Amino acid sequence: MSSVADIRAAARRMEGQIVQTPLLNAPLLDRIAGRKVLVKAENLQKTGSFKLRGAWSALSVLPPGEGVLAYSSGNHAQGVAWAGAAMGRPVVVVMPADAPSVKIENTRAYGAEVVLYDREREDRAEIGAAIIAARGLHLVPPYDHPMVIAGQGTVGLEIVAQAEGIDEADVLVPCGGGGLTAGIALALEGRFRPRPVEPAGFDDTARALAAGAPQRNPRLGGSICDAILTPEPGKLTFPRLQALCGPGLVVSDEEALRAVALAFTHLRLVLEPGGAVALAAALFRQDLPETVIAVASGGNVDAAIFARALAMA
Amino acid sequence: MSSVADIRAAARRMEGQIVQTPLLNAPLLDRIAGRKVLVKAENLQKTGSFKLRGAWSALSVLPPGEGVLAYSSGNHAQGVAWAGAAMGRPVVVVMPADAPSVKIENTRAYGAEVVLYDREREDRAEIGAAIIAARGLHLVPPYDHPMVIAGQGTVGLEIVAQAEGIDEADVLVPCGGGGLTAGIALALEGRFRPRPVEPAGFDDTARALAAGAPQRNPRLGGSICDAILTPEPGKLTFPRLQALCGPGLVVSDEEALRAVALAFTHLRLVLEPGGAVALAAALFRQDLPETVIAVASGGNVDAAIFARALAMA
Repeated sequence: MSSVADIRAAARRMEGQIVQTPLLNAPLLDRIAGRKVLVKAENLQKTGSFKLRGAWSALSVLPPGEGVLAYSSGNHAQGVAWAGAAMGRPVVVVMPADAPSVKIENTRAYGAEVVLYDREREDRAEIGAAIIAARGLHLVPPYDHPMVIAGQGTVGLEIVAQAEGIDEADVLVPCGGGGLTAGIALALEGRFRPRPVEPAGFDDTARALAAGAPQRNPRLGGSICDAILTPEPGKLTFPRLQALCGPGLVVSDEEALRAVALAFTHLRLVLEPGGAVALAAALFRQDLPETVIAVASGGNVDAAIFARALAMA
Repeated sequence: MSSVADIRAAARRMEGQIVQTPLLNAPLLDRIAGRKVLVKAENLQKTGSFKLRGAWSALSVLPPGEGVLAYSSGNHAQGVAWAGAAMGRPVVVVMPADAPSVKIENTRAYGAEVVLYDREREDRAEIGAAIIAARGLHLVPPYDHPMVIAGQGTVGLEIVAQAEGIDEADVLVPCGGGGLTAGIALALEGRFRPRPVEPAGFDDTARALAAGAPQRNPRLGGSICDAILTPEPGKLTFPRLQALCGPGLVVSDEEALRAVALAFTHLRLVLEPGGAVALAAALFRQDLPETVIAVASGGNVDAAIFARALAMA
């Protein structure tokens, strides 16, 4: 299981390869939130999301030249494609055919071979296993993998360094399978309280934390927050969340879109809805401390969805 | 006149007060440009533009408590309002009534008193002079002022530090009155070649550099690049541009909007059209070296204009 030492080691392996993303603030946003909101702009990471960190961490410990396979609705795909290309590794990504087109196009543009499947009728694990067996690839899971969690945790190391001078804060993290949340939770070492944020209808982690045992979501699609829709918490991630996180927060799709619009106006950042759920919670939930650090986890959004958010600006 | 020493002094006065904005890159943008493009994301500066730097620099040398007045179509207004509020100074801003509403609203929200005027029929200098006389304020010009130029030059100091390892590059700078371009040109100290970029129809600086003498623009409104429409080069700025800059570049409004769209998709940045002209030149002009650093100078854009750009994405 990943430790802070693993996270520090991952940070060293990716030195000079990733963007140390800024921690931004806007007084006019603070006014709307009724509290101080610091935004960790991980949408500015190469490939447009934090996923590059976990991918880089995992790929950088594999034997040189060997190839990898990933399942992903988009951001993990781009991270693995980018890291693989940088290291000269073959990359195959199995993506749902209804993933945002910008994510599919970029994954291909970074040089990966993309295999599309029908999310409703096909089993991606089956498709992937056949390719792995035929071509001798390593599977790079999106969150349930110690090196991936260690990579995502580097976001937490940067937050601790950048939030110097802040005594107390909740760190709100968009949560799908929990890799980013678990990594950040470990990296914070009790300095701030981490809390997962999920879209309504996909709040398996919030319910699991409340119930003390993993819970499943009734359905898999249908939220605008495509980046963070997972069936249940990860096997490696959930025990970490249980040990380290405060209660989960839940926001509606409309609140996520409003957060996208407010990040446009006040932070000049492009966020995708799933990447904006932590900011949405910071803005629209009440049970929060005076200072909140919201991770903006990704910015790969189709123009049509962004235009919907703009109509709220 | 400002020197590199003045710029370094300005940088010290604003330490901890401004965002050290990141220098970003996207391989998919490089592919479109046919060259390496590094983007200095000054749209992430507090208030959404570089103008805070010049305002902070100028206001921080005035006697404590004394008030200021500025003329501005928006970004300088917000910079002066923010810096004034932070220092506890009264701020009056004289703005054209047709400035983007987001800029007028934010200037008020930062605590400044906004006086609107009709750009076609009223003389802002006359309006401002009367208020200055009545209330004993200091005028803070948007560009023709040594401390303002020194403040904008801090962008150049950061570029030099962040572009370590790059041997040769043109630094493209959105140019209105030339304060940012002159400041950066001084700060580069010959390390890279600075070049002003202007919107078509407002290319007074490009023509002046070619002619060897100041030139005027025939009209004052009518470009989407509202942030950088000025009648002629500044009296203090132009001699610096003449001494230090390569030839000016000119882009169309449509190219500026396409650059806004491409920054949305590939950099996840919100740019205003005037703030995107240097990126537009980096993407769409041919006579450029292999590596180009484009300053993205601002991101205060109304949702309706941004939606027009999105339709091109």
